[in-house]
Amino acid sequence: MTTAVDRVRAAYARIAQVDRPEVWIALRPQADTESDAAAVDAKVAAGDRLPLAGTVLAVKGNIDVAGLPTTAGCPAYAYEPDTDAPAVARLKAAGAVVLGTTNLDQFATGLVGTRSPYGAVRNALSPEHVSGGSSSGSAVAVALGIADIALGTDTAGSGRVPAAFNGIVGLKPTFGLIPTEGVVPACASLDCVTVFAHTLAEAEQAMSLMAAPPGRALSAPAPRDPGPWRIAVPELGQLGRLDPGWAEAFEAAAQRISDAGAELLPVDLAPFTEAAAMLYEGAFVAERYTAVGAFIDAHPGSPDLDPTVAGIISRAKDIPAHQLYADQQRLASLRVRALATLGDADALLLPTAPGHPTLTEVAADPLGVNARLGRFTNSTNLFDLAAVAVPAGDVNGLPFGVMLIGPAFTDERLVRIAGLLDNPPLRLAVIGAHLSGQPLNGQLLAVGARLVRTTTTARAYRLYALDTLPPKPGLVRVGEDGGTIEAEVWQLPAEGLGVFLAALPRPMALGSVELADGSFVTGFLCEPQAVEGAREITSYGSWRAYLAALPRP
Amino acid sequence: MTTAVDRVRAAYARIAQVDRPEVWIALRPQADTESDAAAVDAKVAAGDRLPLAGTVLAVKGNIDVAGLPTTAGCPAYAYEPDTDAPAVARLKAAGAVVLGTTNLDQFATGLVGTRSPYGAVRNALSPEHVSGGSSSGSAVAVALGIADIALGTDTAGSGRVPAAFNGIVGLKPTFGLIPTEGVVPACASLDCVTVFAHTLAEAEQAMSLMAAPPGRALSAPAPRDPGPWRIAVPELGQLGRLDPGWAEAFEAAAQRISDAGAELLPVDLAPFTEAAAMLYEGAFVAERYTAVGAFIDAHPGSPDLDPTVAGIISRAKDIPAHQLYADQQRLASLRVRALATLGDADALLLPTAPGHPTLTEVAADPLGVNARLGRFTNSTNLFDLAAVAVPAGDVNGLPFGVMLIGPAFTDERLVRIAGLLDNPPLRLAVIGAHLSGQPLNGQLLAVGARLVRTTTTARAYRLYALDTLPPKPGLVRVGEDGGTIEAEVWQLPAEGLGVFLAALPRPMALGSVELADGSFVTGFLCEPQAVEGAREITSYGSWRAYLAALPRP
Repeated sequence: MTTAVDRVRAAYARIAQVDRPEVWIALRPQADTESDAAAVDAKVAAGDRLPLAGTVLAVKGNIDVAGLPTTAGCPAYAYEPDTDAPAVARLKAAGAVVLGTTNLDQFATGLVGTRSPYGAVRNALSPEHVSGGSSSGSAVAVALGIADIALGTDTAGSGRVPAAFNGIVGLKPTFGLIPTEGVVPACASLDCVTVFAHTLAEAEQAMSLMAAPPGRALSAPAPRDPGPWRIAVPELGQLGRLDPGWAEAFEAAAQRISDAGAELLPVDLAPFTEAAAMLYEGAFVAERYTAVGAFIDAHPGSPDLDPTVAGIISRAKDIPAHQLYADQQRLASLRVRALATLGDADALLLPTAPGHPTLTEVAADPLGVNARLGRFTNSTNLFDLAAVAVPAGDVNGLPFGVMLIGPAFTDERLVRIAGLLDNPPLRLAVIGAHLSGQPLNGQLLAVGARLVRTTTTARAYRLYALDTLPPKPGLVRVGEDGGTIEAEVWQLPAEGLGVFLAALPRPMALGSVELADGSFVTGFLCEPQAVEGAREITSYGSWRAYLAALPRP
Repeated sequence: MTTAVDRVRAAYARIAQVDRPEVWIALRPQADTESDAAAVDAKVAAGDRLPLAGTVLAVKGNIDVAGLPTTAGCPAYAYEPDTDAPAVARLKAAGAVVLGTTNLDQFATGLVGTRSPYGAVRNALSPEHVSGGSSSGSAVAVALGIADIALGTDTAGSGRVPAAFNGIVGLKPTFGLIPTEGVVPACASLDCVTVFAHTLAEAEQAMSLMAAPPGRALSAPAPRDPGPWRIAVPELGQLGRLDPGWAEAFEAAAQRISDAGAELLPVDLAPFTEAAAMLYEGAFVAERYTAVGAFIDAHPGSPDLDPTVAGIISRAKDIPAHQLYADQQRLASLRVRALATLGDADALLLPTAPGHPTLTEVAADPLGVNARLGRFTNSTNLFDLAAVAVPAGDVNGLPFGVMLIGPAFTDERLVRIAGLLDNPPLRLAVIGAHLSGQPLNGQLLAVGARLVRTTTTARAYRLYALDTLPPKPGLVRVGEDGGTIEAEVWQLPAEGLGVFLAALPRPMALGSVELADGSFVTGFLCEPQAVEGAREITSYGSWRAYLAALPRP
């Protein structure tokens, strides 16, 4: 069994291996962390049930961890808290071991991950791209496999944009669900503690451990009629400019949710987009001055201050309160429009961000690039909604992510819906005994598969009649000399795939099959030696046609 | 039957009689109003069921009435709305006839009723005292018997302070329960349309007709365990300086609620008082600049502007948004404290105001006197609570009023609780056949009466054995030559009194009886001729003692 000490040691080994020092603001000495891990192991040995025993945890640098400086990304601001923030304390009580505090966009002001005197945090998968922020170090620590889970915060997308850019899960719970005591405020009326993890299950477990009877009472979501999930999906034209390939990736994610049985509904994204634009253009930014404005004013020109962040917050000093009231009234009216257009949808599907800039692009236009990144995330907190950010494939070798956004206190429902993407159904091309009406078709029906369409392979395959019982064909890719073969595309629930594979007999194999439209899908192939001496039946164009032409026994 | 036309004519007759022109900003021509009333009468004659048929309605001058100028108390601001505000439209649809629009503290900024270029509104009962504001004209129109009901608005007490000062009922519903479309905003996030009436029943009926599925969903109050009402009552020391006699009047109101069976609970008034002080001292006043600041800035020195109001709103222009955020955070924390100290109380009982100034006192210190008036009302709206203001007796010949304040959407519950004061239980001193164990005691028990205490009359009465069946004593006040007579004080629910009186046989009568402690209470007397020739039994000191001394039959 892997002990907590083993896991902590592996984390430090990984830290050394990846050489990303900018991830950390205060990494604890390995001896201290191992000592904590040994204590966890001792408790487990004594019979304590610790749901997170040995889970390696990284904590964003604006959240109190007793014994480490809370910096909020600004050395001069640092203080040493006597106690852990409740969010941290609850995870530690469940057996998590804190590695240290992570780098962030200073005062949690940014979505880029570059605004820190501790260094710009590079993307986990592509060092010339930004990590996303403001919870940059936490996301990268998880994405690089150093920490199992990490805490971030999210005021306008800081717990989601870095999840998307680094290919991991980010939960932005309902405001008030997780206490924000011991967290340096960015905008106190919007701030949420968030979780990064590799899987929805790990993130949800941490969220449920941190949630507790809060100042804001826990409200159950409105009861829901039975039926398929109803997911609001905006038209591409409302998403604005996206990076190349991102529109297609978004449509594919919507299609996967639809394929999983959800009903897709239209939605007007305009109120969301208008609210998002108010975040930095309007008066709401003044709340950041309330939080740390006096500190910034007292340290003019300090090298400890990120000049972009200091400028944003200083300029907020003179925003008049009457403008804030006007903005709050406008926001309230936009929220009514937003909730109306969502109607009875369970969730809104959006790209997490409109694109993924490089460090160079951010340096060239620090405000403009940052503002663009919040186009889809900013409105969530302003409208008092919850969100789950999940990976949804890759585009040009970089992760692409989407969000599921829903009403306050529907957090668990959103996790379940996001699971449709996290663990999507498999599409399977069948060409022989699994075709409709053929002897093994029942194996598909037994695991809940359904027929999506009937097509053919690309003109690149040969078909052989194998010497098996029941008789099966063998499909072999040969390239230009091949023909097209009738195929049915079936969709299997992800949880059915294991059952199906366990029942797959030799010499059959699953691989990637090219269809007539040029797309590739998992499909039946066979072991090469099975076709040696077998009859080639490519000219029939179909296993069924071959069978029909056989003399009746 | 009184027709709508009759009622409207009576209203104009009363207007002429009272000679209070400052009540009105736009009084409609009598012919127009009579025409509306005739239309209502015709509908009723045709069989329409109009719950407010012929109810005479006055509307505060910041609420749209089609065809009348909406002034908000400022001639230069006036506009002529094409349509009624929904609140007005719903009352008219129910058969109410609008007399006109009433005077107010300009832009609903004030609690005094003097801040208007249309003239200071004098108190209905004492012209040298203020009417209270800002809904000054509406309250006085009802108090003077001109209108049956009137609409006000309440941002910080404007629908309650004038109710208290003029001896009528004022309902401040939950924010959002009645639409504020067509109302000139004072502080849009706090403004409520309110109702003035002579009785709780009339006010509640109007409120229920105006409430409708609003932008803010109607939420049912938390279900309540059975049991007596639980009313939070602060100690006098927390109320601050009150006008002479007001502390005693407040304690008497609390006693009446307790006597009616409610449980009185302690409460810490500090968070309410601290929040109240934030209203004009803090950043919240900037919302008034959002509403009408641009208009005021565009009319410097205009005689149409009340200089006190214009000064308050102009000075709010420069309040910074970061201070507003800080105040909103402090308010949120005060609200948590307030709700915590209320605990499971159904309502908080408070004086509606701490005192009742004269017009001269207000003129001498316009800001200070006004600020004091909001000490108990300001926090209601800031904390998102509902309130009912009801008369609770007189002090020095002027009305004294209290409020019952409770959670949002407990409006109906607050009205029921306020009914304990509006229609309090009766105390009755019995000295004969209604005493415990005597033949007619069952009449008391049958209407839900309970024994409060056993005492004697003051030393001023003679007792006679009357020739009735069953035998009864007759109590006659004689002054210094009298004796003391055993008496029981019983409390009857108000609704039981009618039943009890209907069963009262000649020659018995109910009048005022002086008890040993010098207090007066309703008690049994008898018609004077009944004692002629009757045996005087004063020396027994008790009807029971007399009966016990009679020879056994």
